[in-house]
Order: sequence, then structure tokens, then C-alpha cells
Amino acid sequence: MAQRKSLADSSCPVARALDIVGERWALLIVRDAFDGVRRFGEFQESLGIARNILADRLRLLVDAAVLEVVPASDGSAYQEYALTPKGEALFPVIVTLRQWGEANLFARGEKHSQLIDRASGKPVAKLTLRTASGIAPAARGTYVKKVAA
Amino acid sequence: MAQRKSLADSSCPVARALDIVGERWALLIVRDAFDGVRRFGEFQESLGIARNILADRLRLLVDAAVLEVVPASDGSAYQEYALTPKGEALFPVIVTLRQWGEANLFARGEKHSQLIDRASGKPVAKLTLRTASGIAPAARGTYVKKVAA
Repeated sequence: MAQRKSLADSSCPVARALDIVGERWALLIVRDAFDGVRRFGEFQESLGIARNILADRLRLLVDAAVLEVVPASDGSAYQEYALTPKGEALFPVIVTLRQWGEANLFARGEKHSQLIDRASGKPVAKLTLRTASGIAPAARGTYVKKVAA
Repeated sequence: MAQRKSLADSSCPVARALDIVGERWALLIVRDAFDGVRRFGEFQESLGIARNILADRLRLLVDAAVLEVVPASDGSAYQEYALTPKGEALFPVIVTLRQWGEANLFARGEKHSQLIDRASGKPVAKLTLRTASGIAPAARGTYVKKVAA
């Protein structure tokens, strides 16, 4: 698939990222993994997708080293899927998608799931992108410098 | 398509977000819009995708109020696509995808495009998710509280 290859080889990190996670089921599987889902049947129940599609997406995520197959945590014969460090590093992507959805895709007063801070038991406060020295520039305050051809 | 509907109606903000932007071309179009791309032909040249696929993805983004069709900025007869405020609000999603790509998908020393701060002319420093009172909890320090059925 030439178009997939062109994204994987892109000098744009956004394009390379989307070559792996630019697909709804891939990111919903990652979301579920953060929520503690580990087994094929649990993913299937949560997502309600066909087994062949789920198997394909899990395989792609394992191939991309976002998930790894590990022995069942309870000692049974089941395989489980666990986030690798590379997969754990997708947490900010999931959080920014959540926050965009919360702010833009729900009617006033419409209920949605919430991200809770275990330490305080309260919803995680609105997150902003910041550099070490302060709030990050808005989109208009930045530009993308391409790699010289 | 029942599965798309189920995501749009989900009580999970991540799922609702992915109903709109859970597709590589949708987010690459949004990326290009942040980079100043506005016309159909410019998107096509940048993305290298078929006209019918591009037209479909642009229509979906306009329907979702992420993009809006505006008169050409030079007074010509062309239509242009501009980010709405809802679309502008996707900037953190693009930045977190970029940073995940930069950190995980390039070999050491391999060149990639950079996000530059216009004010300083320097690359935007590594961004972290923070609450108003400090650094945000890591994934393991949070859980998702579902809406009561």
C-alpha cells in the first residue's frame, strides 16, 4: 500500500504517528488498554466490533510495538495485551482527544465519562499544553519548519 | 452505519472525538490547515490523495463544523477551507501526535519537521500536560468514571 508507506516514511512526525494510530479502532483499543482492558474478549465486548477487525487492529498495534502480548495475569492460558512504554506515551493523545470531545461534542448538561485523579478522587483539571517555562504558544504563534529536501 | 452512530452517541468523549477525527486523512487535513493550506488543490498536492477521497473528508469536516467554506482570501472565485474555533481547538491533539511521533518513530539523528515558536524563532520546547496547579497525573494515576447507566 503505497500511501501507507509514504506516511511511515514521512519527515512529518504527525504523519508517522497517524500511520499507526490514524484509525478510530486503534485509538479506542489504546483507550481501553489505559482503562485496564487486557483480553481479546474484553476488547470485543467494549468495542462491539467484529472479531476479524479487532484481531487485525491488535496485530497492527503489536507490530508497531504499541501493545505487547503477555501471559495472562491470573496464570490462566489466556493471552493478554499490555501497553508498552511506547503505548503508554500515547496518554497525552488520548487526553487531548477527550478534552476536545468534552468541550465541543456534548450538549450543555449532557453527561459524559470523566477522567478522575486517583489521589484526590476528583476530575482531572483542564489540561493545557505548556513548555517548561510557561504556557505553550497558540497555533498562530507557531509554524512548521520542513526538513530541507 | 450503526457503528459510526454508536460512537457519535457515546458517553465517552474520546469515542465522540474519534467519530470525527479518527481517520488519518481527516487529521492530516487539519494539520495542513494549521500550516496555512486553504484550497482544494493545495490539500491535494500536500496529501497526494485521490480527489474523491479528499472531497469526502473535507465534506465530513465541514459537516462536523471543524472546517468552514469561506470566500477566497485573494478575492478570486476559489473556495477556501478555514478552521473554525472548534477546529482550532484541535491544536493540542496535533501537537501531542507530533510529539509522540518525534519521540518514538524516528531513528536517532533522523531529521523531521519541527514546530517553531514565531516569537523566538526556536523550536517549541517539549510540551507536557498540566493542570492549573501543576503537572498532570500519569495514566496510572487516573481512571475513567463511566456515566451511570
